[in-house]
Amino acid sequence: MDRPRPYTGGMPTRVDLSAFECSVARTLDVVGDKWTLLILRDAFYGVRRFEDFARDLGIARNVLTSRLTSLVEHGVLERVQYEQRPPRHEYRLTDKGRALFPVMLTMMHWGDTWQPEGEDAPVTIVHKDCGATTHAQTVCAACEQPMGPGDVRVDPLPPVVEELRAARRAAESA
Amino acid sequence: MDRPRPYTGGMPTRVDLSAFECSVARTLDVVGDKWTLLILRDAFYGVRRFEDFARDLGIARNVLTSRLTSLVEHGVLERVQYEQRPPRHEYRLTDKGRALFPVMLTMMHWGDTWQPEGEDAPVTIVHKDCGATTHAQTVCAACEQPMGPGDVRVDPLPPVVEELRAARRAAESA
Repeated sequence: MDRPRPYTGGMPTRVDLSAFECSVARTLDVVGDKWTLLILRDAFYGVRRFEDFARDLGIARNVLTSRLTSLVEHGVLERVQYEQRPPRHEYRLTDKGRALFPVMLTMMHWGDTWQPEGEDAPVTIVHKDCGATTHAQTVCAACEQPMGPGDVRVDPLPPVVEELRAARRAAESA
Repeated sequence: MDRPRPYTGGMPTRVDLSAFECSVARTLDVVGDKWTLLILRDAFYGVRRFEDFARDLGIARNVLTSRLTSLVEHGVLERVQYEQRPPRHEYRLTDKGRALFPVMLTMMHWGDTWQPEGEDAPVTIVHKDCGATTHAQTVCAACEQPMGPGDVRVDPLPPVVEELRAARRAAESA
């Protein structure tokens, strides 16, 4: 039963995106879920306990359990016992979890700019160090200047993109 | 039948997150889906046509159709006719879509740092302007210095977070 498999650009068709050769895909494999990022947002605000996440987000308890378990498995949160009798646990951000803060800030800025609900941004961010009401800006780590979609060269490109570019070059030189 | 409803921190329990007073939630309402961000990644690489997205991602055609339709409805992509006979369309990034590039870069950097598959980052980014092999850095738009989770003040905080902080202050001053 050797049926030909559809061409998938060298990528597997199963849903576990961690197998994709792409860091965006691998990040989404951990945080690519609406509830997960809202849980992380609360964690950045200092929420640590199951009941507090549940109350703040109005999330179903079974969904919250599965998302917290997944974040612990991925090393984004750690489950720490804070009381002996009865045994009680809380969820704390790890270094890996805290490193998601720029992702959060960058999403927040895009939401404020392009998906506004009313007149004003619903949440104000003040940078304590400089005192300014501010937002996240994404720059090149080397020269500290902004990087737009046309300002970068990516290597390697997905096979289909390589093909498309080769076809475009051929058409231009014909 | 006036049963008491569970306390949800003032937030609605339905799944449409655009009602949440939070830009992160509203961003996730548009892009909080693994396939959606992979489609956008390909769009940034120059992929525009249904068949090319389908081939590159190995995504089911009905899923691809629904995600592209949603991105068009949200104004992230526009559907443009590029051929009259037969009528053919392609999907191009709008300004709103291009503004998601920093979200993509920031996710990519986190994935490279914290979810590495092998020894090296699977994709290299070169900033054409300065020539450096680089990654995204997130800074304060006002002072251009990094902003960590402890460096910002957020206002307003979710009700549950306000409560927790008030309780903490009361405990400290007792």
